[in-house]
Amino acid sequence: MKSYNETLGDFLARVSEPSSIEFVELKNALGRVLACDAKASSDYPAMLTAAMDGIACKSSDIKAGAKLRIISSLPAGSMPSDEVVANTCVKSFTGALMSEGSDTLVPLENLEFTSQNNENYAIIKESVQAGFAVRQIGESYKKGEILLRSGSFIDYAAIAVLAELGIKQIGVYKKPKVALIATGSELVDVGLAKNPAQIYNSNAYALAALLENWGCEGVIYPIIKDNENALKACLNKAFSECDFIITTGGVSVGEFDFMRDFVRQSGEILVDKCAIKPGRHIKIARICGENSKVKKLVFALPGFSYSAITTAILFVRPYVYRLFGAKMDFEKTAVLAEDYELKGQLENFSAASLSVENGKLLISTKGKKQGSSAISTNLLDLAVLLRLSSSAKKGDIVRYIEI
Amino acid sequence: MKSYNETLGDFLARVSEPSSIEFVELKNALGRVLACDAKASSDYPAMLTAAMDGIACKSSDIKAGAKLRIISSLPAGSMPSDEVVANTCVKSFTGALMSEGSDTLVPLENLEFTSQNNENYAIIKESVQAGFAVRQIGESYKKGEILLRSGSFIDYAAIAVLAELGIKQIGVYKKPKVALIATGSELVDVGLAKNPAQIYNSNAYALAALLENWGCEGVIYPIIKDNENALKACLNKAFSECDFIITTGGVSVGEFDFMRDFVRQSGEILVDKCAIKPGRHIKIARICGENSKVKKLVFALPGFSYSAITTAILFVRPYVYRLFGAKMDFEKTAVLAEDYELKGQLENFSAASLSVENGKLLISTKGKKQGSSAISTNLLDLAVLLRLSSSAKKGDIVRYIEI
Repeated sequence: MKSYNETLGDFLARVSEPSSIEFVELKNALGRVLACDAKASSDYPAMLTAAMDGIACKSSDIKAGAKLRIISSLPAGSMPSDEVVANTCVKSFTGALMSEGSDTLVPLENLEFTSQNNENYAIIKESVQAGFAVRQIGESYKKGEILLRSGSFIDYAAIAVLAELGIKQIGVYKKPKVALIATGSELVDVGLAKNPAQIYNSNAYALAALLENWGCEGVIYPIIKDNENALKACLNKAFSECDFIITTGGVSVGEFDFMRDFVRQSGEILVDKCAIKPGRHIKIARICGENSKVKKLVFALPGFSYSAITTAILFVRPYVYRLFGAKMDFEKTAVLAEDYELKGQLENFSAASLSVENGKLLISTKGKKQGSSAISTNLLDLAVLLRLSSSAKKGDIVRYIEI
Repeated sequence: MKSYNETLGDFLARVSEPSSIEFVELKNALGRVLACDAKASSDYPAMLTAAMDGIACKSSDIKAGAKLRIISSLPAGSMPSDEVVANTCVKSFTGALMSEGSDTLVPLENLEFTSQNNENYAIIKESVQAGFAVRQIGESYKKGEILLRSGSFIDYAAIAVLAELGIKQIGVYKKPKVALIATGSELVDVGLAKNPAQIYNSNAYALAALLENWGCEGVIYPIIKDNENALKACLNKAFSECDFIITTGGVSVGEFDFMRDFVRQSGEILVDKCAIKPGRHIKIARICGENSKVKKLVFALPGFSYSAITTAILFVRPYVYRLFGAKMDFEKTAVLAEDYELKGQLENFSAASLSVENGKLLISTKGKKQGSSAISTNLLDLAVLLRLSSSAKKGDIVRYIEI
């Protein structure tokens, strides 16, 4: 079996179709993936701008006790019309442009006002340095600066920047539609009664949630019992309705593992096993639907919930990110909080928690339950995946994968 | 002016109405907030379960070369009917219950099969320890164990656990509907033309995105120019349509700062300024709408984008979490990557980035632009808020607020 890195690298090298593009309203863009760079079309601010309420004047006029004639008042949003000359000023409000000839904003807090002969004056009680409370041209960004890269997930800050650029509709990658097919005679859908030998289908729901986080739309198909014909019919339906398919269960070595046989017979196998724990039986193949020449991907993931989720994180997420041209920086490092003994011989991906102690980022598997790969509660509380291919000691710097 | 901690504490002590509850389908629950504890109604698994494909047998029979008669075959999902006695076994598949009398699963990989006199036998090539590949009763959780607490945000892992419990509809807190009103004569809505003195309204969009992350629904109202009557009319409309209101702009000391006057005149002021930079002019009040005796909250945030976002994080988020009874663990610590000089006298909340170097969690403001509180690009790339009330040295352990 090949290592995770090698398996993933080989797999990604063989898939490259980028997702197609659509336009969405900015207010619906959260969580979508930008399909173009967002560039500043002008300096921002484009002109000197008051950052406080006060007077715009020449720095050469500023000293405690100076008395400047107010030639006009300029609210934010209006174009300035008056020029500030020596010993004059323009009353200016936060966000207003700085009038011609002015370079400094003396804030209200530093001023007194007086009138004399029908003229209004500002008296500077306390001086400020030249350029005070003025947003310089290009302070936020310069014309042509690339502010967001194609392939970025759009978070609240990206929304703020896109709005600042005046963008109302934005080009994003279409959400890949992903069929989620849970297989196994022991599975029952949530909300229904079951016998003690049966369990609820949690994989389809968990994967749909993960896919939503990854900018995709998961479509949950009915559970397929261990029946080859039902499986084929469902896969064909999913094939015609979705961009790619994820199945869970049926990839191991038993005689009910129809998914294993299906992808081996019908597909161009891209991944067949990988040296990871959990998930070594994972299979990924390209298959043709009935009456179709188009090939689509099937990720045949193992059935235990922790295995299904982990292998989706290890293989489906990088694939989706590749479709979006998104940066893959899932792997981080931390300090191991206690000795870790490798389970079995394969590279372990164990649920772990992060904490910071005295400035050190610690990773720990303490508090996680030991047992089979069916323990999904280990993923609660923002768990990450500790990644180790040999036993390690407390204090070692180790790798983990963010979820 | 009071400190942030004191201001927030006093504010939260005066608001306590919990959000009301509704039921949603599990598949629509991602990002919502659980309104009840989720408890295991039985041990999971409830009975010993095979974690691999193989034979269920007695550990006392297991040794290399042992030959066990196969009395039946048990797929996952079926109730066992046969009892395993000495020198017999039940062929069992991943997820199947362990038959009575068996305690260990010998996996297929360790077996050979043979037939003799119309009976089928499994021959153990390699032995395993007692209990091998058996999910013990309660391995995932025990009956009565609380798996998720009321007030938890529902992530993919919570969805997995809720599905595992068979829950189809789940009680969550209703999404508070939040009116977003940007004020300022300089503002123009995205997609429209503007003059060089105008800027686009980014606050409403950014806040709507933040609120979505916080389990709320932001409703963007039309921009209000600096006009007291238009402002009052809009506030009254928002008052009747939403659960609470956020305005941006108009809270400072100038004569166009109508929001300041409005909340001071019409509201029961809960917060009036706070010793923070940015955002010291923030105001929070309870107001009555026209023709209403119900009081609702208005958060009057400053107008510059970085200030508006920061004050929303500092005050609106804790309020929302309080409505949900959610755990507020926003504050973390890290090691300062370079000297930090306090800007002004107030507690600074500066955009910063995190990285890990040699196991140390470093926080840095390098790469963030210096200038006014209008620089929203500083919040890109998963920025956090470095929190300092005095200058600090490289290597100091400092606090930051996660966004």
